[in-house]
Amino acid sequence: MDLNPATPAFAQTLAAALPEGTIDTPEARYLEEPRGRYAGQAGVLARPRSAQEVATLIRMAGEARVGVVPYGGGTGLVGGQVAPEGAAPLILSLERMTAIRDVLPEENVLVAEAGVILADIQKAAEDAGRLFPLSLAAEGSARIGGNLATNAGGTGVLRYGNARDLCLGLEAVLPDGQIWHGLTRLRKNNTGYDLRHLLIGAEGTLGVITAAALKLSPRPARTGTALLVIRDAAAALSLLALARDQMGETVSAFELIHRQGFDFLAETMPEVRIPFDTIPEWSVLIEVGTSAALDPAQALEALFAAALEDGLVSDGLIAQSAQQGRDFWTIRESIPEANRRIGSVSSHDISVPLGAIPGFIGEAGERLAKLGDFRINCFGHVGDGNLHYNVFPQPGRSRADHKNQRDAIKTCVHDLVHELGGSVSAEHGVGRLKVGDLERYTDPAKLSAMRAIKAALDPRGIMNPGAVLRAV
Amino acid sequence: MDLNPATPAFAQTLAAALPEGTIDTPEARYLEEPRGRYAGQAGVLARPRSAQEVATLIRMAGEARVGVVPYGGGTGLVGGQVAPEGAAPLILSLERMTAIRDVLPEENVLVAEAGVILADIQKAAEDAGRLFPLSLAAEGSARIGGNLATNAGGTGVLRYGNARDLCLGLEAVLPDGQIWHGLTRLRKNNTGYDLRHLLIGAEGTLGVITAAALKLSPRPARTGTALLVIRDAAAALSLLALARDQMGETVSAFELIHRQGFDFLAETMPEVRIPFDTIPEWSVLIEVGTSAALDPAQALEALFAAALEDGLVSDGLIAQSAQQGRDFWTIRESIPEANRRIGSVSSHDISVPLGAIPGFIGEAGERLAKLGDFRINCFGHVGDGNLHYNVFPQPGRSRADHKNQRDAIKTCVHDLVHELGGSVSAEHGVGRLKVGDLERYTDPAKLSAMRAIKAALDPRGIMNPGAVLRAV
Repeated sequence: MDLNPATPAFAQTLAAALPEGTIDTPEARYLEEPRGRYAGQAGVLARPRSAQEVATLIRMAGEARVGVVPYGGGTGLVGGQVAPEGAAPLILSLERMTAIRDVLPEENVLVAEAGVILADIQKAAEDAGRLFPLSLAAEGSARIGGNLATNAGGTGVLRYGNARDLCLGLEAVLPDGQIWHGLTRLRKNNTGYDLRHLLIGAEGTLGVITAAALKLSPRPARTGTALLVIRDAAAALSLLALARDQMGETVSAFELIHRQGFDFLAETMPEVRIPFDTIPEWSVLIEVGTSAALDPAQALEALFAAALEDGLVSDGLIAQSAQQGRDFWTIRESIPEANRRIGSVSSHDISVPLGAIPGFIGEAGERLAKLGDFRINCFGHVGDGNLHYNVFPQPGRSRADHKNQRDAIKTCVHDLVHELGGSVSAEHGVGRLKVGDLERYTDPAKLSAMRAIKAALDPRGIMNPGAVLRAV
Repeated sequence: MDLNPATPAFAQTLAAALPEGTIDTPEARYLEEPRGRYAGQAGVLARPRSAQEVATLIRMAGEARVGVVPYGGGTGLVGGQVAPEGAAPLILSLERMTAIRDVLPEENVLVAEAGVILADIQKAAEDAGRLFPLSLAAEGSARIGGNLATNAGGTGVLRYGNARDLCLGLEAVLPDGQIWHGLTRLRKNNTGYDLRHLLIGAEGTLGVITAAALKLSPRPARTGTALLVIRDAAAALSLLALARDQMGETVSAFELIHRQGFDFLAETMPEVRIPFDTIPEWSVLIEVGTSAALDPAQALEALFAAALEDGLVSDGLIAQSAQQGRDFWTIRESIPEANRRIGSVSSHDISVPLGAIPGFIGEAGERLAKLGDFRINCFGHVGDGNLHYNVFPQPGRSRADHKNQRDAIKTCVHDLVHELGGSVSAEHGVGRLKVGDLERYTDPAKLSAMRAIKAALDPRGIMNPGAVLRAV
């Protein structure tokens, strides 16, 4: 089904139907994405101020058969926010829909429009004595509509779930231009198919989220942080199970760090202090957030003692101050930047069943060794089975030297993930980058159901064409 | 689209394609449902032993254009499991698919076939030192496939979520007979539309769940229970917020009890001991489950003291033994039976936003008073905004005396719920009972999207025809 380009004439038609200043020509920033893999086509930019205006835009795009690319904070890592191919699209930015419509601390609910920046939601929750637990590197510029459209993950998933688990209701414009008023604040609602969960993670291909009712949590009164040296990668899982047995849901982060991460920090960011004399092969950063009645440092001491006895850990540090806790987090949070400075040959955002993690790490290393001599930095949200498994050149070589191997490396890693029942996109989504991976690895019954749903809800194929599913 | 009846000839065709004993004539129990509102048509009974056999049955039903009614434990309260109208169906019972395929305590995962009885899953989790927190009155006969198909709720939702929140992956047969192998154990997986959440809560209208990967939790080491007398219904919400501030996620149940519930118990089940000299107008049952490091009774004492100071509670009991805790639960769990013995005129499984609960209770009482003189028992999972709001005749009168008022009462309650942004089916689903309510109260954009999805995935309309959406 061929789409028409968003032409100046189309822009004029839109401009006549919408308030002044809604329609514009997109600046360069709307055509870029963080990793520089895709250059978007310009087309026309729309910056609506209400769901009603979004509905008008989608309806008119449908009539004109012009593709619509929803645009949030532009921080996505898989090219879901730019259209490098096909007819030039209508870029629909939610940046002007930034109202926090409601904060209801007693209900633990916050209602925000799609364009609110994630950090602003965190702040509004904090001001109300509550926690909005979605937390990720791009939170200073990512917008909640995009976080939901991509079902964002981040560091709080272990305790609080993915973005979809933090959403009670949605307002959205469907591909036919109808507004779905689904902004419910209900914890229980079994009236028909769960359209909310269908739109979340659909990356704008089934409609545009315009507002969301979000679930807040009590703020943990006290926080404890530890950096523990573990026996091996397998010990991470046993330690996690032990921690959850001892401390239940209070375990809020459980992040794996490999020696390679410390080495990259030493190499590229010497200002980040590493608190070990000998760099450990494997370590985990654990955070617990407890109620006032429980001393988190004491709980972590008890965990450390039990884990030492079980031979799971050999050494470790329990933060004795908030500052020391932040220092531990600085290490973890600086690793992606260190990676960027080194320059990866290939990066993988994968998940496998928890029990398969040690096997994955061992086997992936062996298979990659056959392809060449690489440095591997494997780190991330091990408590969720989600690893960032990134492959780097040896010192003295550059990523460009391995350019021709990139596809083989990616296939090697992704094939193994698939064999182990894992996912080749754990938290970043499919976008345009992984459309081929989705076709290769997704169960055929699911893929055909996805295509049938897409065709049913968006028969003209105008919504984010080419993302998630190949445009037909 | 007219369906054909499941005839003896069709039964023979199926029998020839499937192992001996798979195809049968349904006994009466497959045609009944707990509230006796619907009598199902007999048709043909199939009891497959594998997803492959389910796929064969669905494919052959599709070719013959025979409707398929999936059947779990038969405990549903909205008639989703029986077909009283239209062509006689193929009743597809999952009762022989009862394998627990895997228990992985370190991963907190259990993989069960759809026919496993909920209590057996709870038991298997317990044997592995884990908790499967889905808990509801029918757990001794309800099967997990049905629990998921209806997104069951129950008493553990406040802490652990609804059935959908406890499911990591599904194996299911789609309406075209394809098996979707989606039995992932992943915590994070952003590869395409979330088919799992679409099938969960679809009540068998988009396919048949044949197995599920379920999320287990650590077992709380210690449990505390309290029965607190609250100032009024509004105080329940403030008390809940206070409890969660003090104790975070350890609050695992928060159940509202009205004086009427105690009165019904005294009237019909005098063996249930009521631990108050003066029956309180409103009370709440609170359960907390903590790690070993925290004394739950002490935490409840602290909550009681703070709530007393805030004027939220006036009296209360904190269980001093496990037995006393169970006694408190016996009160709560006996209320539905007492209700049955009294005989309701109309029962409502509704939810409203937490903040709207006090207003709902007040306004519903006033509106109903205009319709007649009733006794109202309002109780339930107030922490989830989910109330069972049931209307009874005054003493000396029977439900039959009010038969003609039933529809008016239901509409009165449901209209108010809808005005308040609530749901007319919080946890029981739509089934056949609430198809009209769904049409009346559901947002038109959502309803048309639901119909489009149904038509796309099940173009012949064979899957549980007449449930959720009117058969077309």
